Amino acid sequence: MSGRLTVIGLGPGNADQVTPEASRAVTEAKFFYGYKPYLDRLELRPDQTRVASDNREELARSKDALTKAAEGHDVAVVSGGDPGVFAMAAAVCEAIEAGPAEWRAVDVAVVPGITAMLAVAARIGAPLGHDFCAISLSDNLKPWELIELRLLAAAGAGFVIALYNPISKARPWQLGRAFECLAAILPGTTPVIFGRAAGRPDERIEVYLLADVEAEKADMATCIIIGSPETRIIKRGEKPALVYTPRSSTGRTK
Amino acid sequence: MSGRLTVIGLGPGNADQVTPEASRAVTEAKFFYGYKPYLDRLELRPDQTRVASDNREELARSKDALTKAAEGHDVAVVSGGDPGVFAMAAAVCEAIEAGPAEWRAVDVAVVPGITAMLAVAARIGAPLGHDFCAISLSDNLKPWELIELRLLAAAGAGFVIALYNPISKARPWQLGRAFECLAAILPGTTPVIFGRAAGRPDERIEVYLLADVEAEKADMATCIIIGSPETRIIKRGEKPALVYTPRSSTGRTK
Repeated sequence: MSGRLTVIGLGPGNADQVTPEASRAVTEAKFFYGYKPYLDRLELRPDQTRVASDNREELARSKDALTKAAEGHDVAVVSGGDPGVFAMAAAVCEAIEAGPAEWRAVDVAVVPGITAMLAVAARIGAPLGHDFCAISLSDNLKPWELIELRLLAAAGAGFVIALYNPISKARPWQLGRAFECLAAILPGTTPVIFGRAAGRPDERIEVYLLADVEAEKADMATCIIIGSPETRIIKRGEKPALVYTPRSSTGRTK
Repeated sequence: MSGRLTVIGLGPGNADQVTPEASRAVTEAKFFYGYKPYLDRLELRPDQTRVASDNREELARSKDALTKAAEGHDVAVVSGGDPGVFAMAAAVCEAIEAGPAEWRAVDVAVVPGITAMLAVAARIGAPLGHDFCAISLSDNLKPWELIELRLLAAAGAGFVIALYNPISKARPWQLGRAFECLAAILPGTTPVIFGRAAGRPDERIEVYLLADVEAEKADMATCIIIGSPETRIIKRGEKPALVYTPRSSTGRTK
């Protein structure tokens, strides 16, 4: 008597960017597991139960949710953004793989959402308009050396780079170090976008050049997009500048 | 008397994955420019006008739309997926940068959407659960050598790779060649996902191993996700397998 577990992506935080599929999935579930700020976005009915947990408790949260679903309940795990991008879908899969056989019998579904880099990119033009990559800057779950290797490989090959989890109280120096690495191989004129709370009332989207960027202006909720050497800024007088990466590429890396 | 141009992302093709923000933007615009199959997804009112154009006419379409908007009209350019990912937002920016001054005075907005790789990933688990990149395999706008360089750089550094525009009648051999390049540095057991029409009635999501994959099973509308050496397949008996990339990484590349 296995239940159902749906991992739901709520998008960047603006109700207008929650898909109808995600809204319907919220209506159908009975038990909601998630990081409290994401659960706070939901308007639940009295017959729906929320089980809030802290950040960095993704695996424990996944196990609790799977246990509940395996008992036959309709369970949701909620994520900001897209649950498949540095979020809960992978944690749920990890728990299933390592867990008891009955967890494999749970009906698992993932409902995609607008991930932060897409929301930020949309507010500034089209910085992800050509080949790009997404890197989590958190070295909680991988060695810092690997992050540097990926930054250099990506920038050296001309990818635009979106950074998730750029900075936190426990990880204060990593973002500054990442910019130093990138500055060694990218032009100082490379556009860098700091996007926070895209589409929300407290939105803040700022464009810097790599030579001038200051890591301390970012926080946990910032998504950072670092252009390629081909990324361009269009000045528009009083209107905000547009930043975009052309669809064509010559392969210029300096 | 400048108008407005909104670049709207309609998601992968399932009405349930069109955000309320995108639906509202469709309601508000008067003139719609786009590739015909995307325009066909809209239910327009009699006072709304559609201007269909062909694939590969992105720049001409952008210019037409900007001309109309600069005359003071409310104009929409529609894209499948997310307009910022290998789609219309960059084409519109290119046209603005190269165009007359009045095009810079147009109010431009981009409405993000669920891009194909997120929709495909959601249907199979969490293959994009760790660092990943997106590469357009089309060599219409960049040299093939650059594509190979990026494939090798990404795979060598342990990124999961999403391929857009993998194959077409005019580009029949590129995908097979890409798999050959990747097979030289990735294990033959690396999972490869072919995702077509995710979330639509004709959806087809298939999982292969890199050693066995056949390029000719893909078509223009397929989004391909190639795992990293850390990507895993969870067998679940009668239920479909889950494919995911763990949140933690040791940096293993073989």
